[in-house]
Amino acid sequence: MVDPVALLKELVRMPSVSADPSRAGDSQRTVEFIRDRLVQLGAEVNIVDNEKTDGVRRYNPMLLARLGDDPDKNTLALYSHYDVQPALLEDGWDTEPFEPLERDINGESYIYGRGTNDDKGPIAATLCAVEELVQEGSLPVNFRFIYEGEEESGSNGFEETLRKHHEWLGKIDGILILDTSWFTDDAPGLDYGFRGLAYMGIEIQGPVKDVHSGLGGGIIPEPMDDLVKILSRLVDGHNRVTVPGFYDDVAPLTPEEKALYDNISFDLEQFKQSNGLNALLTDDPKQLLMDNWRNPSLSIHGIEGAFSEKGGKTVIPAKVIGKVSMRLVPNQDPKKIAELFTDYVEKLFKDLKSPNRLTVHTMATGDWWYGDPSHVLYEKARGILRDYWGVEPTLTRSGGSIPIIPFMEKLFGASAIAIGVGQNSDGAHSQNERIRVKNLVGAKEVLKRYFQMLSAVKLS
Amino acid sequence: MVDPVALLKELVRMPSVSADPSRAGDSQRTVEFIRDRLVQLGAEVNIVDNEKTDGVRRYNPMLLARLGDDPDKNTLALYSHYDVQPALLEDGWDTEPFEPLERDINGESYIYGRGTNDDKGPIAATLCAVEELVQEGSLPVNFRFIYEGEEESGSNGFEETLRKHHEWLGKIDGILILDTSWFTDDAPGLDYGFRGLAYMGIEIQGPVKDVHSGLGGGIIPEPMDDLVKILSRLVDGHNRVTVPGFYDDVAPLTPEEKALYDNISFDLEQFKQSNGLNALLTDDPKQLLMDNWRNPSLSIHGIEGAFSEKGGKTVIPAKVIGKVSMRLVPNQDPKKIAELFTDYVEKLFKDLKSPNRLTVHTMATGDWWYGDPSHVLYEKARGILRDYWGVEPTLTRSGGSIPIIPFMEKLFGASAIAIGVGQNSDGAHSQNERIRVKNLVGAKEVLKRYFQMLSAVKLS
Repeated sequence: MVDPVALLKELVRMPSVSADPSRAGDSQRTVEFIRDRLVQLGAEVNIVDNEKTDGVRRYNPMLLARLGDDPDKNTLALYSHYDVQPALLEDGWDTEPFEPLERDINGESYIYGRGTNDDKGPIAATLCAVEELVQEGSLPVNFRFIYEGEEESGSNGFEETLRKHHEWLGKIDGILILDTSWFTDDAPGLDYGFRGLAYMGIEIQGPVKDVHSGLGGGIIPEPMDDLVKILSRLVDGHNRVTVPGFYDDVAPLTPEEKALYDNISFDLEQFKQSNGLNALLTDDPKQLLMDNWRNPSLSIHGIEGAFSEKGGKTVIPAKVIGKVSMRLVPNQDPKKIAELFTDYVEKLFKDLKSPNRLTVHTMATGDWWYGDPSHVLYEKARGILRDYWGVEPTLTRSGGSIPIIPFMEKLFGASAIAIGVGQNSDGAHSQNERIRVKNLVGAKEVLKRYFQMLSAVKLS
Repeated sequence: MVDPVALLKELVRMPSVSADPSRAGDSQRTVEFIRDRLVQLGAEVNIVDNEKTDGVRRYNPMLLARLGDDPDKNTLALYSHYDVQPALLEDGWDTEPFEPLERDINGESYIYGRGTNDDKGPIAATLCAVEELVQEGSLPVNFRFIYEGEEESGSNGFEETLRKHHEWLGKIDGILILDTSWFTDDAPGLDYGFRGLAYMGIEIQGPVKDVHSGLGGGIIPEPMDDLVKILSRLVDGHNRVTVPGFYDDVAPLTPEEKALYDNISFDLEQFKQSNGLNALLTDDPKQLLMDNWRNPSLSIHGIEGAFSEKGGKTVIPAKVIGKVSMRLVPNQDPKKIAELFTDYVEKLFKDLKSPNRLTVHTMATGDWWYGDPSHVLYEKARGILRDYWGVEPTLTRSGGSIPIIPFMEKLFGASAIAIGVGQNSDGAHSQNERIRVKNLVGAKEVLKRYFQMLSAVKLS
């Protein structure tokens, strides 16, 4: 028996925050740690340079690995990311986000820490499942590992880097995405769809440097004033995105698609409670799921360059960057949406007649994914999940984005499946992120059985 | 000869940032350092607890000191603050803000570092001037020191604390404010007026904790969206504050007051350049000065709780606090303005029909000051400054706020004067704050002569 809890704790202690360049060393430590673990299992491992740079340094590298080379077996690509979202104790964490803590909540054991759910828990479960198979002396399938280090920053360089190195991995028969959570806390979950993304930065530069508001207040056009006026015009009072043309390519809802939502058991109150949501925009559960999965949205994340600490500072910020992202759906084109957004913001700014300088940055774009839930990968996974957990797994889409899934499907000519590991209430991207130990161990067991079962299936 | 440069460097190395409670220890070190220095000069020193707390700890303490007790001499109260504005290298400083650096710029020597101009330079100059008088063996006046540690956070507890302890200081005949800069870079400056302040926090709480925008985008009412809609409605397209009743009590401009502006030499281009301003709201120099000195304004400083770092984070912030301050003028009442602001923001929020929760905080208020430039304190100061610098000093108001001046005038029944120390381009509150060594040494010399000259004057 291999213990995924101990492995997860070691991974959490390395703050591999891809959004923070000063954490590049921690990300490197993380990927080398995983490499060493895979080498011990007998894998051939390549840490390949990211093909993309931020102008100063290359983005975090990608880990590629091969384990098993039997031409009569299926070859599975296993995808996860070793980077994590930013986290600071001051953000409202109860404990240090990079010091893993095991705690009992209502008789269940959880591991708390940044990345426990997203994606270090899934990585720990995967490595332990494979380790058990290696110890037992027979690999039911050939494994290919694709672990990137830039997912939380928009998968910087993923496509370029994998395009350059994918031939070393050889033929792939199926792609397993281990980067999602269960849809509820009570039933295992599989995903077959994600939204796309366009992440934008609205930069407004006024003075050369910050100005004391006693000196500048009333006599200079303040960049923050321009910025909040633009940000206030992106979503209307009915929560509709106001960018002209934004909804033009959204696929109309067919009766067949609408019917899919009839089969989903979804407890609105429990969903609110487990995610700490005090209010929702609709009380109709089906409408809510559609708004999250199949309709696009826009969120304002924050402002770089303005005063953001506690207390008061009487500063007029010189340069501010509003961070905005849009979640996109079939058949919106993220690059086209980014252009529409840029045009619209430029028009709003022009209307302000401000002498400040505007620059709109497309920080990241990513495709939506719409998979095939009738594929044998799904059929087998549903059976094993049902057997292990004693509950019918839910088959859902998600409001989040993993744009590299459609990319890999095309690159490898193989179908993908996304198997949830943690629970819905784990708080991925939020404070006090966690994973239930039962889920971690369960994922390891389920993956092991899944690999064994796929040995008897012709995947391609 | 005593060297204010070495003393200033020691002061800068202690990051006494009052806005950051985790810096309380550094503030304590700073005030104890100044105490020790004053004790060496023979002063009786009291570090008195701040009467106000933030709920957890008391705010930074106040230093009170007495040096000299001759009933036939005038007694001067010297005011400065030992706390400084926040500063981080990441804010765009060229060097570590709390590591003082001496650098030559166009043949002039400057000291760079947070607090060099505001207020550690003035403190160093004052202490050195007094030290020289002590060394020379005769004090021309009695000194009373009032050094607070919360000025940059709205002078928390100043009034309560000084009200409790002022009797220990005894009778005061004049108040010297050493917390201002020259109006230009080329002529020494005296101030006789400041604007008041109302610093507000607009807090909007949505979910219990931050939510991943993939999960929440499109289905929850986002606090950031409410906040930017409110912030966008505070100033109109003509830079007028939109809070109803805001301008009602602003004193009308009389012909006499208007005439005062005719005597001020003010180079708009140089002002822009030395403050790094790329654009101004008016090209009329007199109108600009009036908008800065005698008209009120509103600035948006930033948002606490939202994503503020570099890169991208796909988060929906759960609780955000918009930081806004208004600079106020005769005869606006800061407390009344804070109420008008609160009422207006509550109305704007109600119009949004958001299910989120709004709380408007009055974080700080402070009175404006309108002094008497014909007082003997000004007459003597003008003469000494003219003699020392060879230039007629400018007599100006300021757009900034030092609300404790009108408070001390009333408390002590004495007039105040504000003597500028650093230059206009020093960047108080901004990145790369600095002071010219010539100004530091000049302030020491001027203060020494001023004290000597005031020995022959009947102040009260």
